[in-house]
Amino acid sequence: MTCFIVIGHLARTDEEWSLNDMPGSAGRMDVLSRCVNASLFLSHDLRRDVDCCLALYGGPDAPKTVKFSGRNVRYLNPDERSAGALLKKALGLRCGTTYRESTPGVFVRKGGLPELLWDHACVVLDVAGSDIRCADVLPDAYLLSDHLNFTEEERESIRDLPKYSVGPQALHADHTITVVLNEIDRRRPGWR
Amino acid sequence: MTCFIVIGHLARTDEEWSLNDMPGSAGRMDVLSRCVNASLFLSHDLRRDVDCCLALYGGPDAPKTVKFSGRNVRYLNPDERSAGALLKKALGLRCGTTYRESTPGVFVRKGGLPELLWDHACVVLDVAGSDIRCADVLPDAYLLSDHLNFTEEERESIRDLPKYSVGPQALHADHTITVVLNEIDRRRPGWR
Repeated sequence: MTCFIVIGHLARTDEEWSLNDMPGSAGRMDVLSRCVNASLFLSHDLRRDVDCCLALYGGPDAPKTVKFSGRNVRYLNPDERSAGALLKKALGLRCGTTYRESTPGVFVRKGGLPELLWDHACVVLDVAGSDIRCADVLPDAYLLSDHLNFTEEERESIRDLPKYSVGPQALHADHTITVVLNEIDRRRPGWR
Repeated sequence: MTCFIVIGHLARTDEEWSLNDMPGSAGRMDVLSRCVNASLFLSHDLRRDVDCCLALYGGPDAPKTVKFSGRNVRYLNPDERSAGALLKKALGLRCGTTYRESTPGVFVRKGGLPELLWDHACVVLDVAGSDIRCADVLPDAYLLSDHLNFTEEERESIRDLPKYSVGPQALHADHTITVVLNEIDRRRPGWR
């Protein structure tokens, strides 16, 4: 099982935003929608062994975490609005500190990065890290930030985690996820 | 200069479609918007040495080609609607068989795949091709299909072109572009 964790620093934790304006009114929810797409989609198939957890830090109910589970997600299409609609629905559901299923394979709970670091032995994806192609064993869980850098507090809490880079250029979070999954795909038995 | 050419088999060649329904009314224009994003965006920067050409085959004016040039594109944001809005504007412009600029860095002309194959010495990105990591020299121009397979006629016209694969899984076109660009990035002097 592979898990991508993305921090949405401004992403709304309620449902009072428009699918027509995910970059603006929803606090760059478009970035997070693309991360869900990159984590879960193959051509005409889904990655059933991948989860994508979005830690949302915008708005009065922050933080909340929405998890998309490739194993049993439904009603998800590749366009940004589709993941956005499922996010909006999840954020409209009352929840506590344990995951509650909103639609099949989409879960929501209160809490953010500290709880996710408790759940997962993470590495951080960072352009200054070690080259992931040189890793002897690929990790199971990867932490990324949205369009903003990690905050001082976040940097402190991930200071001791291993850092990996996918290449010389700083990429968008969703593009980084795509490159990591390609490296994972290539290491499966049977490829060339 | 690197160029990605994507065929949009159903993508509309007029402007009579809604940004709120790019997968449906626009003939999977969402797929093409994501290809523009994957081709041109770095984190907080643009790939100034990449073009993305979309050959659109839907509707009465088909085929048309819309080219996004990283060198001088403006008003482009990473969300799907942003590329969609620039596409819609380009498709509203009357054009002939030579490129006409619609907004800075976005051009439109009549014609499709044959004209693009005339302009560019292409390779085809295909899961059954040779591993791109093993290519001695990376090509300058890459041809991909949208969510549909190449047609019989297209297959005939690209039969003799080299085929490259990015890995063992069949990926969405935009994810494939991201992986190719990562390979290009890694081969530039100065990386590790």
